[in-house]
Amino acid sequence: MSLRARALYDFRAENPGEVSLREAEVLSLCSEQDIEGWLEGVNSRGERGLFPASYVEVIRSEPASPPPPPPPPPAPDSRYSNLPAGGYSPPQPSAQAPPQLAFSFPAGAVQPRPSALHYQQSQPSDDDWDDEWDDSSSTAADEPGGAPTPGYYGGGGFHDYDGSSSRYRMSTRSELPPGSYSTTASSASQAAKGSATVSRNLNRFSAFVKTGGEAFVLGEAAGFVRDGDKLCVVQGPHGPEWQENPYPFGCSIDEPTKQTKFKGMKSYISYRLLPSHTGLQVYRRYKHFDWLYTRLLEKFPVISVPRIPEKQATGRFEEDFISKRRKGLIWWMDHMCSHPVLSRCDAFQHFLTCTDEKAWKQGKRKCEKDDMVGANFFLTLSTPPGAPVLDPHDVEGKLDSFKAFAKRMDEGVLQLNQTAGEFARKQASGFKKEYQKVGMAFKGLGQAFEIDQQPFSVGFNRAMAFTGDAYDAIGEMFAEQPRQDLDPIMDLLAVYQGHLANFPDIIHVQRGALTKVRESKKHVEEGKMELQKASDIQERCNIISYASLAEIQHFHKIRVRDFKSQMQHFLQQQITFFQKVTLKLEEALQKYDAA
Amino acid sequence: MSLRARALYDFRAENPGEVSLREAEVLSLCSEQDIEGWLEGVNSRGERGLFPASYVEVIRSEPASPPPPPPPPPAPDSRYSNLPAGGYSPPQPSAQAPPQLAFSFPAGAVQPRPSALHYQQSQPSDDDWDDEWDDSSSTAADEPGGAPTPGYYGGGGFHDYDGSSSRYRMSTRSELPPGSYSTTASSASQAAKGSATVSRNLNRFSAFVKTGGEAFVLGEAAGFVRDGDKLCVVQGPHGPEWQENPYPFGCSIDEPTKQTKFKGMKSYISYRLLPSHTGLQVYRRYKHFDWLYTRLLEKFPVISVPRIPEKQATGRFEEDFISKRRKGLIWWMDHMCSHPVLSRCDAFQHFLTCTDEKAWKQGKRKCEKDDMVGANFFLTLSTPPGAPVLDPHDVEGKLDSFKAFAKRMDEGVLQLNQTAGEFARKQASGFKKEYQKVGMAFKGLGQAFEIDQQPFSVGFNRAMAFTGDAYDAIGEMFAEQPRQDLDPIMDLLAVYQGHLANFPDIIHVQRGALTKVRESKKHVEEGKMELQKASDIQERCNIISYASLAEIQHFHKIRVRDFKSQMQHFLQQQITFFQKVTLKLEEALQKYDAA
Repeated sequence: MSLRARALYDFRAENPGEVSLREAEVLSLCSEQDIEGWLEGVNSRGERGLFPASYVEVIRSEPASPPPPPPPPPAPDSRYSNLPAGGYSPPQPSAQAPPQLAFSFPAGAVQPRPSALHYQQSQPSDDDWDDEWDDSSSTAADEPGGAPTPGYYGGGGFHDYDGSSSRYRMSTRSELPPGSYSTTASSASQAAKGSATVSRNLNRFSAFVKTGGEAFVLGEAAGFVRDGDKLCVVQGPHGPEWQENPYPFGCSIDEPTKQTKFKGMKSYISYRLLPSHTGLQVYRRYKHFDWLYTRLLEKFPVISVPRIPEKQATGRFEEDFISKRRKGLIWWMDHMCSHPVLSRCDAFQHFLTCTDEKAWKQGKRKCEKDDMVGANFFLTLSTPPGAPVLDPHDVEGKLDSFKAFAKRMDEGVLQLNQTAGEFARKQASGFKKEYQKVGMAFKGLGQAFEIDQQPFSVGFNRAMAFTGDAYDAIGEMFAEQPRQDLDPIMDLLAVYQGHLANFPDIIHVQRGALTKVRESKKHVEEGKMELQKASDIQERCNIISYASLAEIQHFHKIRVRDFKSQMQHFLQQQITFFQKVTLKLEEALQKYDAA
Repeated sequence: MSLRARALYDFRAENPGEVSLREAEVLSLCSEQDIEGWLEGVNSRGERGLFPASYVEVIRSEPASPPPPPPPPPAPDSRYSNLPAGGYSPPQPSAQAPPQLAFSFPAGAVQPRPSALHYQQSQPSDDDWDDEWDDSSSTAADEPGGAPTPGYYGGGGFHDYDGSSSRYRMSTRSELPPGSYSTTASSASQAAKGSATVSRNLNRFSAFVKTGGEAFVLGEAAGFVRDGDKLCVVQGPHGPEWQENPYPFGCSIDEPTKQTKFKGMKSYISYRLLPSHTGLQVYRRYKHFDWLYTRLLEKFPVISVPRIPEKQATGRFEEDFISKRRKGLIWWMDHMCSHPVLSRCDAFQHFLTCTDEKAWKQGKRKCEKDDMVGANFFLTLSTPPGAPVLDPHDVEGKLDSFKAFAKRMDEGVLQLNQTAGEFARKQASGFKKEYQKVGMAFKGLGQAFEIDQQPFSVGFNRAMAFTGDAYDAIGEMFAEQPRQDLDPIMDLLAVYQGHLANFPDIIHVQRGALTKVRESKKHVEEGKMELQKASDIQERCNIISYASLAEIQHFHKIRVRDFKSQMQHFLQQQITFFQKVTLKLEEALQKYDAA
């Protein structure tokens, strides 16, 4: 508490790592030295984080009346440097309504990727088996200044692939493109501890830094890797792949049931899970999924952890929500079980198999104390025996094409999601209405005809009435159909929107490593680094390359598998639907034969 | 030319029998005596007809400067006396834009029934086989002051069944309801020649008067009826019916061809007709259909003559119009051939069989000189041998229920027509768009996927592209489908809108006859009429009753036949459509099996 500062203006934290300030609030500073215009400190609510240096004045004397606030420092992220002019809007003093970026994403807007950092911070520390943090909204979306809600249902896609997605300015914003990296970094590097010859990335938001990727590449990770912890990449027919799980399994999730405790004072929803490899059922609540998800995010930097359905503060016991969440959890479970690395990790196995409350708590603590995270995680990666060192240019090229692919897929997914949603709405409104209006009109005319009750008209009149009913029913069928075909497609798209939102960080870690290789080579050429050290850096980078290419390959494999089977399902459902319509009409037609 | 008058104001003829006047124009009067406020005369264009007496001044000296026009006499029609207050708008001096009642019917508005009177007047007298009156627009809808265009496509239904149809004020407007008849009639009857004991209806617009029904009932018709002219009503299982044509036939109408004459200066459309009973083809133009239609209207007062498609001034050679007109003519021909009386009448047979131009002209003149029209027509009606005299109350009751039926059917037809039209439009716009948007979205995502060309994705990518195309094609199919199913339904509805518009006059004639019976009975009770005379009136009324009930019965029979077969056609087409959609989807699904 040596250094203190007073906030000159309100500042609303919009990204993990930032803290909000209230005008006139007194903060303690960690250092008077700003980094690219940002200071670190602890605000009056005890929250530690970054804020614009220009928004505070260091307390040395009484402050003069404050001048109008200067703009905050620019976001240093120029990784996707084609942000439009209006793309990055600096935070404004919030006399006006606070920007709601993190709290209410309009449909189709960009949703920041939840980061491991965030989860470490927001993770409650209590171990109570049945505590209510999931069921209360305090950590959910409506807390001002809270972290963005994880989950893939809220937003309409993640557009970090697209430079035009102006609202994305998240954890990765301070990583510079490889070309401009060393210059910028060197200008500030004197202020940081600089023991390594290769300059260190100052930006704490960089995924490369955050995940421990940098520390690993620079040779700072050290730990004992048990054989069981090894994550093996093998050479597949199409390049590096994760070694398949030799004992694949699945896990069903039953319709959840509502449970109560404290004599009915508290209610929660419990899911029965039945993993195929143990055959032993376990009961889990949403908060357990959430705990696991957080652990996985923290542990696996170059793996796309499937997202769990979003938290929801209200309507948690409504059937629609429960059914939707269950579908989301089933997708999540499928992607977990399908992943050769995730499916075998300790935390997931603990989650799937533990039936005892005491063991649960022990296992939970053990997972939370896992020291094979961060830089050490990369130690557990193992390349194929005798595998060649991948050409960094090749890896860079593959990253580029995956990035192009992911960008296009993200756009395609967003487009299809919007179209499917619109189509479902149209079927439930317009299509239904049109068919039912036709039904009404047939019925209306039929009712007029019924005034004439001569023997030769009676059968025909009945057939007309039936036809009217048939079109009414067809209208209803159109309205109901999207549940069978479009909704599953949209569920699938949501899962992949989550994955696509995960990949920028994976790409980022990989690019950071490749940059280090390039820098180290340059240093060697300039005689500033020993060849061995550069060679070690390249070798460690190579391990990351194997892992990220394996992860990309895994993504393609499950993508083709999932989309193929969902398209088949969709078409099959559509066929069944049109056959049902046809059947209904044939039934109506037969009434005329009899007439 | 003894009496002349000068028009004080513009007057626009709005009903058959009226003539238009231009301010200051000089007319010759048929009589100085007005009838209920109307005078008859010949205007400067040689058109003879009625106009409000108050709109002219008889020329005796130079006219003074005209005072503002008084309102024209009220329309005396109170047959459907619940016309709303604004229903009958008296013609206004046309300083303002002329009312367009007769010329532009908004969709859904009421279209006046063309009357025989009108056709007699507007019928051109020339006999030229190929004259151009059909092809010029001079008699068509755009001539100011012209008669309403006949045909059933223009308006959206005929609502004389409905008291709220305020714009209907046609040829039947002066017929009073039976209850109020004698009083009103007697007040004016002194002015008319009054030889019969039963008072005569003064209103020349009354269908009962116009058709000669009144004259016939009063015993004034006299003529020699050849056996071949006899129109027999028989006692069917459900009441009076027209005697079936023992030699039923049909007649096909081929795709019309464009013909030219005067070395290509003039063009016209010619239809090849092939009647099944002669097997000899004849060529007819629209004007020949129109001539025949006019003759039939004139000749058959208690028969619903099917309407021919409307005249059209522009676009007559456009394919859509030609195809639409042909469909209309096919329907017309079907209804002509189906009608036991119409199918056998001389004019129709002449039309169907004459191949020689000279014979055509002779036959045409003969038909036009037919003396079995008007009152004499009723002489040709023949009741079943030994048939009982129908109870006038029963007949009245049957008329009432048919009227109720027709009103409901008319509403139902209008509703279905609007719904079908709207549904067709929706399929061509919204439905098509939605399916094609889904196709685009699948294609878009598929194109993103194509960036990944690994062997395991290639087949799937192709399947995605195919699915996109399939949905695009389905959109197109939706847009095209209405031609196959909804359009024929709407064609059918148009035919029946025409019939429904014909029935008020048929009902009217019947009611007029029944009124005469009632009056004559009263006169007998009061000792003003001999029993024999009243008995003769009842007998003649009975003949009309047989005919109109037979016509109603015929209507029901063809209605059930037509609607049944069209509903079957519609449903069959819809089934085929949905099967085609299903097939397309199955084709798409198979691509995934191969993938």
